[in-house]
Amino acid sequence: MDPEGLDLDLDLELVVGGRPVRYPAVWLRDNCPCPECLAPGTGQKLTDITGIPNGLAIARTEDAGESVLVTFAPDQHRSAFSRSWLVEHALGDGADGDGRTEDDKELWLPADLDAGLPAMSWRGYLAGGKAEALEAVLRLGFVLLRDVPAEPGMVLEVAASFGYVRETNYGRLFDVRVEPAPGNLAFTSRAIRPHTDNPYRDPAPTVQLLHCLRAAGEGGDTGLVDGFAAAAELRATDAESFDTLARMPIPFGYIDKETELRASLPLIQLSPRGRVRGVRFNNRSMRPLRRPYAEVIAFYTAYRRWAALLARPERQLSLRLAPGDCLVFDNTRVLHARTAFSMSAGERRRHLQGCYADLDGLASTLAVLTREESR
Amino acid sequence: MDPEGLDLDLDLELVVGGRPVRYPAVWLRDNCPCPECLAPGTGQKLTDITGIPNGLAIARTEDAGESVLVTFAPDQHRSAFSRSWLVEHALGDGADGDGRTEDDKELWLPADLDAGLPAMSWRGYLAGGKAEALEAVLRLGFVLLRDVPAEPGMVLEVAASFGYVRETNYGRLFDVRVEPAPGNLAFTSRAIRPHTDNPYRDPAPTVQLLHCLRAAGEGGDTGLVDGFAAAAELRATDAESFDTLARMPIPFGYIDKETELRASLPLIQLSPRGRVRGVRFNNRSMRPLRRPYAEVIAFYTAYRRWAALLARPERQLSLRLAPGDCLVFDNTRVLHARTAFSMSAGERRRHLQGCYADLDGLASTLAVLTREESR
Repeated sequence: MDPEGLDLDLDLELVVGGRPVRYPAVWLRDNCPCPECLAPGTGQKLTDITGIPNGLAIARTEDAGESVLVTFAPDQHRSAFSRSWLVEHALGDGADGDGRTEDDKELWLPADLDAGLPAMSWRGYLAGGKAEALEAVLRLGFVLLRDVPAEPGMVLEVAASFGYVRETNYGRLFDVRVEPAPGNLAFTSRAIRPHTDNPYRDPAPTVQLLHCLRAAGEGGDTGLVDGFAAAAELRATDAESFDTLARMPIPFGYIDKETELRASLPLIQLSPRGRVRGVRFNNRSMRPLRRPYAEVIAFYTAYRRWAALLARPERQLSLRLAPGDCLVFDNTRVLHARTAFSMSAGERRRHLQGCYADLDGLASTLAVLTREESR
Repeated sequence: MDPEGLDLDLDLELVVGGRPVRYPAVWLRDNCPCPECLAPGTGQKLTDITGIPNGLAIARTEDAGESVLVTFAPDQHRSAFSRSWLVEHALGDGADGDGRTEDDKELWLPADLDAGLPAMSWRGYLAGGKAEALEAVLRLGFVLLRDVPAEPGMVLEVAASFGYVRETNYGRLFDVRVEPAPGNLAFTSRAIRPHTDNPYRDPAPTVQLLHCLRAAGEGGDTGLVDGFAAAAELRATDAESFDTLARMPIPFGYIDKETELRASLPLIQLSPRGRVRGVRFNNRSMRPLRRPYAEVIAFYTAYRRWAALLARPERQLSLRLAPGDCLVFDNTRVLHARTAFSMSAGERRRHLQGCYADLDGLASTLAVLTREESR
């Protein structure tokens, strides 16, 4: 849209790109950029919506070249809006707007990634590749960083490079290796089916990192599934199951000596406009569903179909993490899994380190990098 | 309900408290407690819902005193369910189940708290009062801890006593005092209207702490508003506005040199069953709403009524934090505010320190304490 294409009318109906756009008086007033209304420096609003006078209206508009001057009745408050700002913020049928729903993602099957995984070396990441890597996490749900020094604690440095570590009962970082008395099946050599982490937490961590320090002799391969792509397929092929999973809160829990976490949220979380905004799936930590008989049957029917769809081999991207590999993925979208692994005597034992972080901080880092690049 | 009141039927229809309760075969199988299905020690499920055989049915049930033995067709898997467990987990019209909606809260007006604020000394908190304080945060939305040593950094110790600090772009802790070039109006001496923190973050921090190191000479009083109580009133008096606010994602943003956060979520967040589960409200950081004209008008109508309702003096609990006072509150529910304060020359300057944490960790700590107390 071209700022030059603006025409002014008494009601502040502007013609934008040949189409009339109305700006409500209350909207204009609430977005007034004058230093009484918007704090210079912080860009934060100083006004409160209840302070806008009753009977607000536009008394007068004036064309001032690059700007439109608006005088409001009844208090004669004056605001200057730049034409380019008005064009950029024209009312319309905007999406959910913060990049978190399926509408702002590129959904994938492993076959779609044949051209190459979103991956780069740690050296490349530090030397200007960071924006590309973070963009991949937001768009595809993951990135693989290679040759991150296979040293304990490095996973925290990776997280700190784009955001803030979310400490949990598992610590700031956790070791994924076989433990003698595991509190979680992750800390055994068993296969783990595709799942999201910490569904018993609210807010659940939205980013997970897994950094390989030592690979297993055999097995221990990592699998990734695009939960948003799978949800789109479920909606297309079995709308009733999709609706059931989006509607019913399902209880999850985790208990050990020092911890007792529980949360009850749907397996598929929708935006208010009905778009997929998150998945949570974890067979290990689901707790008994205490709903009426018919609802329970509806849930199990949907859950079983959803689980089968998520487990389809063609949905599972298989990776074998080598020492130094660090996966960064969107825990609201991408499910992860691993195959069982060997524990032969004398063999070096598989050892990953993981930590959690959040998407908002990651997106902020990307936005700042992009702003700097576009200067 | 009394475990003795159970009667066994071939379909595993049990009579619980004189009322028949049916347990679906798939539900029973998914909750089988045998060591093949549930990992001893971790209590995590080893089974996957897709592994349950097609044509699952209950082949046989046997009464075994305290337990019911169930044999499943077609694979003859056997499960023993204790009667008390079955009673405790009977199907029914359970609530959302994790304590986070209005149904599990005690809503308040300041007048309701006349009998006394939820408050205790830091010494009392450490000497056995912690469970009571945390319970107050979950039930009423806040607790006031008094005589927390007025030393920098103590707010992090308070947070660590029940959960995990959520680090953000403001740091692990932030200083709330007048700054020469503030990036946020919080860091001025201005009045700040009732708001929740960080609506531009997703996930937003769910717990906030504010610890007073120095009070202002005049002003700087703290206000708290129960957002869930206010939302219940809005629903009762203006259902249309309530629905608008629960349905429309509203963009929030925060920008400074190193940060560019945005999130778009409704001002009132509902559970899938339509119960209030969170509020976000912050006049300072709302961004221009880019929706069609009629929706924008509907939003501003609702928003203005909601803001007026939240600002009513009878909803606002006023506190004057003294040095050593530390407020811990639910940032998904309780809005906080402050009055403007004096900055007279020679006067000691108001100084709070704050940090964020999360409700899930707080609830976990309370659950573990309660478990220990009930031993």
